Amino acid sequence: MFNTIADLFNNEHFVHEPHQLYDPIEYTLHLGGKRIRPFLLMTANRMFGGDDSQVRQAAIGIEIFHNFTLLHDDLMDRSPIRRGQPTVYRKWNENTAILSGDTMFALAWKHFLAQPSPRLHQILSCFNQTAIEVCEGQQYDMNFEQADNVTIDDYMMMIRLKTAVLLAGALKIGALYAGAPEADIDHLYQFGIHLGLAFQLQDDLLDSYGDVAQFGKQTGQDIRDNKKTYLFLTALQSAPEPLRLELATLFASTPADSDPKVERVWQIYGQLGIRQQVEQAIQLQFDQALTHLDAVQLPADKKAPLLTLIDTLSGRKK
Amino acid sequence: MFNTIADLFNNEHFVHEPHQLYDPIEYTLHLGGKRIRPFLLMTANRMFGGDDSQVRQAAIGIEIFHNFTLLHDDLMDRSPIRRGQPTVYRKWNENTAILSGDTMFALAWKHFLAQPSPRLHQILSCFNQTAIEVCEGQQYDMNFEQADNVTIDDYMMMIRLKTAVLLAGALKIGALYAGAPEADIDHLYQFGIHLGLAFQLQDDLLDSYGDVAQFGKQTGQDIRDNKKTYLFLTALQSAPEPLRLELATLFASTPADSDPKVERVWQIYGQLGIRQQVEQAIQLQFDQALTHLDAVQLPADKKAPLLTLIDTLSGRKK
Repeated sequence: MFNTIADLFNNEHFVHEPHQLYDPIEYTLHLGGKRIRPFLLMTANRMFGGDDSQVRQAAIGIEIFHNFTLLHDDLMDRSPIRRGQPTVYRKWNENTAILSGDTMFALAWKHFLAQPSPRLHQILSCFNQTAIEVCEGQQYDMNFEQADNVTIDDYMMMIRLKTAVLLAGALKIGALYAGAPEADIDHLYQFGIHLGLAFQLQDDLLDSYGDVAQFGKQTGQDIRDNKKTYLFLTALQSAPEPLRLELATLFASTPADSDPKVERVWQIYGQLGIRQQVEQAIQLQFDQALTHLDAVQLPADKKAPLLTLIDTLSGRKK
Repeated sequence: MFNTIADLFNNEHFVHEPHQLYDPIEYTLHLGGKRIRPFLLMTANRMFGGDDSQVRQAAIGIEIFHNFTLLHDDLMDRSPIRRGQPTVYRKWNENTAILSGDTMFALAWKHFLAQPSPRLHQILSCFNQTAIEVCEGQQYDMNFEQADNVTIDDYMMMIRLKTAVLLAGALKIGALYAGAPEADIDHLYQFGIHLGLAFQLQDDLLDSYGDVAQFGKQTGQDIRDNKKTYLFLTALQSAPEPLRLELATLFASTPADSDPKVERVWQIYGQLGIRQQVEQAIQLQFDQALTHLDAVQLPADKKAPLLTLIDTLSGRKK
């Protein structure tokens, strides 16, 4: 689906002196990825009659920003692997990860500033507000690791900031470049928010119920890491005592052999019907996304790419 | 001199949720400092007839950016103290320093975007180019710690990027807000570059020859840290063998008691007349700054604040 978007970075290079600063940037930006944010930005622009050349630099900019957040997040979370390759702080070192990340944030701005628009001030303000919210989301994520009273509402607020606003912002920025009407932009933004929430909940679900052949996941890693995902928080809310206490205790433990713990958590999840509850929550987000897409004042054929995206991701069509 | 500028942050607060993210920002931005970058930005704006209210947000923005670079540099350099207080990574932790720093970079943009100007695109591009160069300068600084073939030219290039371009950028941005002519802006920028180089060379000099009563320095800390400062590089260039080898060997050693090492280096510096050489180099930078200030097409009274700044800093007047 994202083939033309993937090409965006194939001819884009970030080789510059000092190479100790730019090598990790070039490495990070050529690790691949689905390039969904540039896809959303360009798609929103096309929907309202914009030409790809009008948003090419902005599309690159938003992907650089996204990769900057991954780079710093991987350092903060001590994640050794990203897209099957060592993360920057592991391949180089922590200082390189900090400074190359900072530089990527600035490079994202450089690309946005290189893309003219009569609405540039609004576009840059949207980008910047999004950037601030993504930082806030990452902080809440780190806070929640230490907290033992995280609610489902807290969690939804966190993933909205950490994940959803950037998808929504990409759509809004693309539509702004095309000169779309304000009401349509607002609906597209809300579409992006619900899409992003659905994405993150799906990601949570895959950790326990992913198709291993398709996604290479279903490792129960979130359970081993005691991550307070949507699954865990839903289970905690649904479980009667003493199951609730057992679950909380399991998520406070880090046994050397974590397999029995994962098996027991999965048993509890099964007993409580967590998979079904989370699947419903995901479909609810997709439905809300579709409601906002419906409200956009454009003919159906213009909305087809986003509709196809939802259908594919929601598993309604494959 | 900077009293009115110091007030800039007295009524400006950054208290927001999540407080774990914003507390370190509020802390950092109220640690004080000379606020020289806002001073330069506002002074350049006034010189060309601008009103302070036209640049207030930009002046705050540039100081936030500067403090963001200090925050991340302190983490990368493992500096425990800044302005007599614990640095953010010591008072909180490394992740807080990374993420609060990232957020400060975004907040700097927020303030710039809040300050309207018909030249905003040029202003933001200047700010961003400056930010990229400051990152490059920090990378060169870290590279040079590991290198044993750093030349004086390399060093001047590094401090131009790490320190001087931000002073120059502050002046350029202030002048852009006031609608100054391009030729004058160029001279003001070059004034800022030479001012910044003089600043950094003075800072290097103070480490060995500072007035302890006035600056609370003269610790020889750069020598203990084996920092390749302008003093060391000048000494290395001036020293005949075997003095050159001795100096290089001293700067490759880290004795438990570093006092004898510092004393010996000072002895060598004295023998080679390093203090005088560096003082001459500083005056040369101040002279070049003044040449560019002279070339600005404004009446003398408009240039008086920058002239006073140079006179004070260069010790020609006190």
